[in-house]
Amino acid sequence: MADAKARIAVLGASGYTGSELVRLLLRHPRVEIVALTADRKAGLSMADVFPQFAPFPLPKLVTIDAVDFTAVDLVFCALPHATTQEVIKKVFEVAPAVKVVDLSADFRLKDPGAYEQWYGNPHSATELQQEAAFGLVEIYRNEIRKARLVANPGCHTTTSILPVVPLLEAGAIEPDSIVIDSKTGMSGAGRSAKEAMLFSEVSEGIHAYSVSGHRHMGELDQEYSKAAGRPVTPMFVPVLTPMNRGIYATIFVRTTGATAEDLHNLLATYYKGEAFVHVLPFGAVPQSRHVRGSNMVFIGVVADRVPGRAIILSTLDNLVKGASGQAVQNMNLVLGFPETLGLEQIALMP
Amino acid sequence: MADAKARIAVLGASGYTGSELVRLLLRHPRVEIVALTADRKAGLSMADVFPQFAPFPLPKLVTIDAVDFTAVDLVFCALPHATTQEVIKKVFEVAPAVKVVDLSADFRLKDPGAYEQWYGNPHSATELQQEAAFGLVEIYRNEIRKARLVANPGCHTTTSILPVVPLLEAGAIEPDSIVIDSKTGMSGAGRSAKEAMLFSEVSEGIHAYSVSGHRHMGELDQEYSKAAGRPVTPMFVPVLTPMNRGIYATIFVRTTGATAEDLHNLLATYYKGEAFVHVLPFGAVPQSRHVRGSNMVFIGVVADRVPGRAIILSTLDNLVKGASGQAVQNMNLVLGFPETLGLEQIALMP
Amino acid sequence: MADAKARIAVLGASGYTGSELVRLLLRHPRVEIVALTADRKAGLSMADVFPQFAPFPLPKLVTIDAVDFTAVDLVFCALPHATTQEVIKKVFEVAPAVKVVDLSADFRLKDPGAYEQWYGNPHSATELQQEAAFGLVEIYRNEIRKARLVANPGCHTTTSILPVVPLLEAGAIEPDSIVIDSKTGMSGAGRSAKEAMLFSEVSEGIHAYSVSGHRHMGELDQEYSKAAGRPVTPMFVPVLTPMNRGIYATIFVRTTGATAEDLHNLLATYYKGEAFVHVLPFGAVPQSRHVRGSNMVFIGVVADRVPGRAIILSTLDNLVKGASGQAVQNMNLVLGFPETLGLEQIALMP
Amino acid sequence: MADAKARIAVLGASGYTGSELVRLLLRHPRVEIVALTADRKAGLSMADVFPQFAPFPLPKLVTIDAVDFTAVDLVFCALPHATTQEVIKKVFEVAPAVKVVDLSADFRLKDPGAYEQWYGNPHSATELQQEAAFGLVEIYRNEIRKARLVANPGCHTTTSILPVVPLLEAGAIEPDSIVIDSKTGMSGAGRSAKEAMLFSEVSEGIHAYSVSGHRHMGELDQEYSKAAGRPVTPMFVPVLTPMNRGIYATIFVRTTGATAEDLHNLLATYYKGEAFVHVLPFGAVPQSRHVRGSNMVFIGVVADRVPGRAIILSTLDNLVKGASGQAVQNMNLVLGFPETLGLEQIALMP
Repeated sequence: MADAKARIAVLGASGYTGSELVRLLLRHPRVEIVALTADRKAGLSMADVFPQFAPFPLPKLVTIDAVDFTAVDLVFCALPHATTQEVIKKVFEVAPAVKVVDLSADFRLKDPGAYEQWYGNPHSATELQQEAAFGLVEIYRNEIRKARLVANPGCHTTTSILPVVPLLEAGAIEPDSIVIDSKTGMSGAGRSAKEAMLFSEVSEGIHAYSVSGHRHMGELDQEYSKAAGRPVTPMFVPVLTPMNRGIYATIFVRTTGATAEDLHNLLATYYKGEAFVHVLPFGAVPQSRHVRGSNMVFIGVVADRVPGRAIILSTLDNLVKGASGQAVQNMNLVLGFPETLGLEQIALMP
Repeated sequence: MADAKARIAVLGASGYTGSELVRLLLRHPRVEIVALTADRKAGLSMADVFPQFAPFPLPKLVTIDAVDFTAVDLVFCALPHATTQEVIKKVFEVAPAVKVVDLSADFRLKDPGAYEQWYGNPHSATELQQEAAFGLVEIYRNEIRKARLVANPGCHTTTSILPVVPLLEAGAIEPDSIVIDSKTGMSGAGRSAKEAMLFSEVSEGIHAYSVSGHRHMGELDQEYSKAAGRPVTPMFVPVLTPMNRGIYATIFVRTTGATAEDLHNLLATYYKGEAFVHVLPFGAVPQSRHVRGSNMVFIGVVADRVPGRAIILSTLDNLVKGASGQAVQNMNLVLGFPETLGLEQIALMP
Repeated sequence: MADAKARIAVLGASGYTGSELVRLLLRHPRVEIVALTADRKAGLSMADVFPQFAPFPLPKLVTIDAVDFTAVDLVFCALPHATTQEVIKKVFEVAPAVKVVDLSADFRLKDPGAYEQWYGNPHSATELQQEAAFGLVEIYRNEIRKARLVANPGCHTTTSILPVVPLLEAGAIEPDSIVIDSKTGMSGAGRSAKEAMLFSEVSEGIHAYSVSGHRHMGELDQEYSKAAGRPVTPMFVPVLTPMNRGIYATIFVRTTGATAEDLHNLLATYYKGEAFVHVLPFGAVPQSRHVRGSNMVFIGVVADRVPGRAIILSTLDNLVKGASGQAVQNMNLVLGFPETLGLEQIALMP
Repeated sequence: MADAKARIAVLGASGYTGSELVRLLLRHPRVEIVALTADRKAGLSMADVFPQFAPFPLPKLVTIDAVDFTAVDLVFCALPHATTQEVIKKVFEVAPAVKVVDLSADFRLKDPGAYEQWYGNPHSATELQQEAAFGLVEIYRNEIRKARLVANPGCHTTTSILPVVPLLEAGAIEPDSIVIDSKTGMSGAGRSAKEAMLFSEVSEGIHAYSVSGHRHMGELDQEYSKAAGRPVTPMFVPVLTPMNRGIYATIFVRTTGATAEDLHNLLATYYKGEAFVHVLPFGAVPQSRHVRGSNMVFIGVVADRVPGRAIILSTLDNLVKGASGQAVQNMNLVLGFPETLGLEQIALMP
């Protein structure tokens, strides 16, 4: 029956990436949400936790133990880092044929040493780590189509990999020149109650964080190094910005001889035909609000006043293309649906 | 040919209600945007004016003169008050069979005297004024289905009419007791450059405006009086709030004997089965962010500590159910489409 | 020695009212901060907890037990409700001559029954409860000058008592007609980590809270009833607004015959000569941002379109005149300093 | 008479830097505001334009022609770029002994060629251009003390010059490695009505601007080159951030052999004893909200994960240390007052 709906479970539905998955999946014509989990909030309805869902029928929140994974076609895993690997290992033990799109960082790094360096303990599911496809669709589309387990990349990562990898592959920029200031909205910090994320602590001001080492650097190193064919360790500083949604990266590069306009043309050609990557005209500057709520990435390339230097500006919605939207895009590939299905929503502005 | 797409023109596409119409119509399966107008910005592309539309094909912005209304099925008119009546009169002269959904205030008041009182000059299209249906779907659904011209109600108005009219019709509340504090986001002030609407003037603070007389009062008076069967003039103060989207009305009432819970039950019954009006459980308090970006109205009823008094809280997104979403809902009725088509989007939160 | 500085202790210095006290006291010419307490953060420096104080010398945070109250002239108590009464009782046992300005709600209600009704348990220091002066300077200046213990009023309370009490005393408004929608910024919710106060939960939206009964109602009832000479129970709804600072009350009243302009003149006369209460010209509307960071209250009176009804708008900064600024004003009276000392700061706008 | 108050004129009092000057000067014990100008708003009171000043006596707004500069001791000039040079030339013709602190960019660049390059037309007061002292107090204190005309530096400029110049002077960093991402609040864009600065256009999002060439780059080049003893042209991108106040610069550098901790120690030593520059402990990250409303600069130095690379974070309030506070600090020097007079206000947080 070609049109039977795929049965979907969302593990960790009480966080922002979880609710964003539900928002997208509820309007996706080919899927049906059959299970939603939330450890501490098990027993509540989704509307208790996110009142915007009150008008819509949804399964109650349960613990992971209560899910019958043999009756599920695809699992989205939106759990905290580290616990994820144990959970997914068990899911595959029970239901080896289920597909998994994991939104944590647990399966993004291929190198067990790099994983241990950035996350502080050895990986406990190294076979799955090797099996997982890196879920950056525009770069790894073919691998993802065949994957059982997809590691959805990080939000800072997606923003800064997409506009840089094609330039490194082409040898057009100096790998050691890359400097990134990556501004993020507050929703990326998640929904757990922390003093540092109270409105009064973070509105009307701005500050950098994790300056000496943010975990997304491991993903950047991995993908940049692969593209350049040699180790690359960019300078990278994340900055917490008083807005809900959006990543906005200012990427400073030096070319190997190309002009800034050459860089622009390389990117425009590379992403021609992509539904979710839009390269602006040369010299134009994107704004994060123009992608808010959508699955789009907007990329701009501007010449620096000094020839041989260029500034690349890249922006996306951290909860959509930076997390749940990209996860649905991965699901579409894994389940053989059209890639853009359920992701057509246009940015909400203002 | 049942599935030919309806041809749509949007007059005044460079404002926020215009762009919101485009956002919704671009994803509506039964329509096609064939004309977009913007007087001062004619000649530009929609992407020049709203970069979020860059990835999507759209007609160029033109002046109203350049539109062939005989090749259009329905016109959305998102023009400033007053100029609107002239424009629509001319549209009907050229194309008498076209349908019009007007987002201005020009056709909302049935009484020419009331119009002149609130808007300062006599109406110049009084026949159309009498012809127009008041576009509050949940109350006037049948009239709208047959209408050629629909007057889309105001954002404050919709928020405060929906939860009060059923109570007045039932005689459950004292008509003279109604007091409304109606908080609105900034996008309701439109996109024209005004010092008073600069970020630095309106963020991090709050203030009332038009306290002694906001034009939406005319619509409230009209609908409340009709429901009560005698003149009603509520106290009404609009308040400018540092957020983009949302109307949030605190409505204070005294009952004619009913309890607050009776009021709740009346509303829950009245709106049962409505796709876009959600009455929360008795005592629960809605939040504007739970309807942001959606066409929903959320209504809560809470008992005051003194019996016989109640507080009603009503909220919607001023650009969706308070303007463009409601306009599309009206279009769906007028063109015979399912009422919810193109309006299924769930609130964006955070 | 006339100019010896008064020795001040701040109990509960790690919250927002505590830090606001420190901000004001550090620049007050007649006082010296000798002790700062914070239970869970004892041992830290004030700069660890509030980095804005890093450039200034301040005592370390200690527990309350570590404070020698016999070497203190005045104690500000910025502790949670309920625990406060025990703490202050002990302070007076050790140091009967010390002065105390209490920012909690524990000593605001004179009637033990009312206290128990609003706070859920009986008062444990009823003698002090009777002794305490209600610290609304503009109304109780003489009592406060002689007081050993001052109960600093709440932020919603101060905003809505000041513009209404003179009208009730004059018999100019109907006591039963009072309806208040009182909007507050986020800092009033304090600094403890709560999911409901995260930036992503409360920005870009608005909602009412404690609709069926906010504790500040007890203070309103007490002061309104006293002014009217008979029981008054206003309708009162607090609303959480996406800004850091500010209370903004819309107060709807019906007169007993007076015009709105009469109400204005009554208030203008009553507050003539007050340094911190500014009555705007009749018909003018205040904004919360024009008092932000200052100890001012701005009050506006506007005529409703229906004669005999009026709208009063009252605004202050909840952390200054609504808490710590008013506390310093009380301190100035209690210690015999000029009332405005250390409170001259003008609003920060934008 | 040692304590006679200095007579101050503020030209351009209706903008944000103008109102910020008035806020500071009203509380400065040694000055008296004798004239306030505003071309289009001449005739209004300051309270009409900025209601926060309503409680305080201030001269009416007049046109510049109406000011008697011979009865003024010091003029603050907060006028738009370009018109400023004509105005100041005339002021000195009328009153050669008056002191001027200019907040525009007109006298910041010493090189007439650089001025023309960045501002598009030749300078019309080149003698004054050579005479002017560059008003960055911590670096040019002695020149400023003797100056008749002080060119107050830009907000981005002050933020990025203070932490970098000492390192360049010491030869501790590679001049060609400097990359700056400088985030600014909205008030820096001024108070004129522009669509691009409406709340709904700039809240809930972020974007770079003037990427290919912001005028503050000219000041950076001048001061960096002077410190390095050879031409320096840093990469510099300004970014518009949804907050009112604050500049926050992420400055990426490579050392000439020093460690990041060496850079920290250099800065800590250089600014030891400065009242308005606070260097945080090594590795600590400043936040813009911790300097909001104050005249402080907070500087942090953090080691990059790769030795020989460091990240410097520098922040100030653009309207205080980035404009009007620094101007008052310059006034204090020029008029022989203690440098910190009137500038003791502590940051407002939250």
